[in-house]
Amino acid sequence: MSIGGAFRIGKLVVVGVGLIGGSFALALRRAGAVDRVTGVGRSRQNLVQALSLGIIDEFDSDMARALEGASLVLLAMPVGQTGRVLAQIGPHLGPGTVVTDAGSTKADVVAAARSCLGGSLARFVPAHPIAGSEASGAGAASAGLYRGRRVVLTPLPETDPHAAAMVRQAWELCGARVSSMSAEEHDRVLGVVSHLPHVLAFAMMDLVNRDRARERLLDHAGSGFRDFTRVAASSAEMWRDICLANRAVLLEALDAYADGLDGLRAAIESQDGAALLEIFAAASRARSEWGERPANAVPDAGE
Amino acid sequence: MSIGGAFRIGKLVVVGVGLIGGSFALALRRAGAVDRVTGVGRSRQNLVQALSLGIIDEFDSDMARALEGASLVLLAMPVGQTGRVLAQIGPHLGPGTVVTDAGSTKADVVAAARSCLGGSLARFVPAHPIAGSEASGAGAASAGLYRGRRVVLTPLPETDPHAAAMVRQAWELCGARVSSMSAEEHDRVLGVVSHLPHVLAFAMMDLVNRDRARERLLDHAGSGFRDFTRVAASSAEMWRDICLANRAVLLEALDAYADGLDGLRAAIESQDGAALLEIFAAASRARSEWGERPANAVPDAGE
Repeated sequence: MSIGGAFRIGKLVVVGVGLIGGSFALALRRAGAVDRVTGVGRSRQNLVQALSLGIIDEFDSDMARALEGASLVLLAMPVGQTGRVLAQIGPHLGPGTVVTDAGSTKADVVAAARSCLGGSLARFVPAHPIAGSEASGAGAASAGLYRGRRVVLTPLPETDPHAAAMVRQAWELCGARVSSMSAEEHDRVLGVVSHLPHVLAFAMMDLVNRDRARERLLDHAGSGFRDFTRVAASSAEMWRDICLANRAVLLEALDAYADGLDGLRAAIESQDGAALLEIFAAASRARSEWGERPANAVPDAGE
Repeated sequence: MSIGGAFRIGKLVVVGVGLIGGSFALALRRAGAVDRVTGVGRSRQNLVQALSLGIIDEFDSDMARALEGASLVLLAMPVGQTGRVLAQIGPHLGPGTVVTDAGSTKADVVAAARSCLGGSLARFVPAHPIAGSEASGAGAASAGLYRGRRVVLTPLPETDPHAAAMVRQAWELCGARVSSMSAEEHDRVLGVVSHLPHVLAFAMMDLVNRDRARERLLDHAGSGFRDFTRVAASSAEMWRDICLANRAVLLEALDAYADGLDGLRAAIESQDGAALLEIFAAASRARSEWGERPANAVPDAGE
């Protein structure tokens, strides 16, 4: 995987050449760190587009052939398909092939890898790039998607340190800031700051959509509503999978959120202006301070 | 208020020269539609800044003197102060002075106007520009804030049509799209698409802020979280006032939202992927379609 000291990936296989997988390939190409990129995916039309956009050099519908001689395999399909794809690739992984993924949940991916990868488990490095947008497909991919964004690795106790180092280096070449934590901690953290707000935004959009005055409501919604609900335009399939995969954490987060909302409701009902002011002021201060951190001012990336 | 057919405001008085009031004055100045702008406000420092930025020509701490000879008075303070200010200006309004406001709630403003304005009530035109941002103060004002944004007028049965026409024309000169509805309908519409998401965003930020893992959470929050919580950086005082003023509508909206969230929670708990997919897909489609309407693609304004 390394020639003359410079980091180099011979053959990169991307399973799921969409926004996430496609942007990874483009960024590594731009860094001059990859010799050849093979795409695998459900949609032939999307693969043809990825080929025409110069994201991949070839695609193959035969998994065994696609994986032959691969240095690195990135799994970038919706989370719900990870188990099936891991089972599919398991038997075809060579001894020199490192596998990573880009799933938004990690404990479920780790469990699936344990049951599917056998002797290749040590060369599997679970990862989650906290980047993206509500757009999807190869056409949405861009080489700059990961610049300044965070990527979390959740290595297992048995993960080969060389495999972890390779995946870390690849993400750093994409411009990402890489950190590590356990799969469980990852799922708790992302459950609160990502999965919960997505569910809340879907619920808001659903409420407006079912209202008898829907048109009038949408006609008077401003930029606060626009930003609040932006993530509700995300892929329904992807978010169904994430909600199911991170079920326990999300239920706990939903309950904690509902408790907080009950408190606000009680303050509004009893006209307790002092309580409202205290909660709003602390939240406003926290949000303003967070917004001033350099990484969070970037206006052009997502998750 | 009109010379030689062209719309013209002689003396404009802005009570509360912040983002909203300051932007109104700047836009009318740029349109060449105002002779003189007088500022009134709580903070002398903010008024001095407004003067130095060319938003106002003068400021006066004496309300009677400030209102003398005024063609149009815009009230643009936090909603909670509207009653007090209406009581204060009532006795000093001349027979040729039209009064409007920019409050985010309307039924409470109408009730206060009825009890404070006496014979001037017919020249009061309640209004709400659905624009703004989480920023505040004269320094945040800009002449383009209202371009393409919606302004809702909620005239009373006794409102003088000439007064309503004047206020409509002033907002149109600011570049706004003006519509009319009853104060009750306004409060219901804005309660759902604006007040509710603000409360939900404050609650999300409050949840993260109180978490033991606060720093780790904020460190891994991406752009979805950023956009979802943007409005939680808004003024706590302003939003306390709005929540109290539109209490009944907001409580009903919170309950409807909580019901929807309960449904999603149940689907997650019972692993009902089909139900989740159906709700998410309908919400995603509705949000995508709404986002494609030209007015909602504008990336630089708020509410």
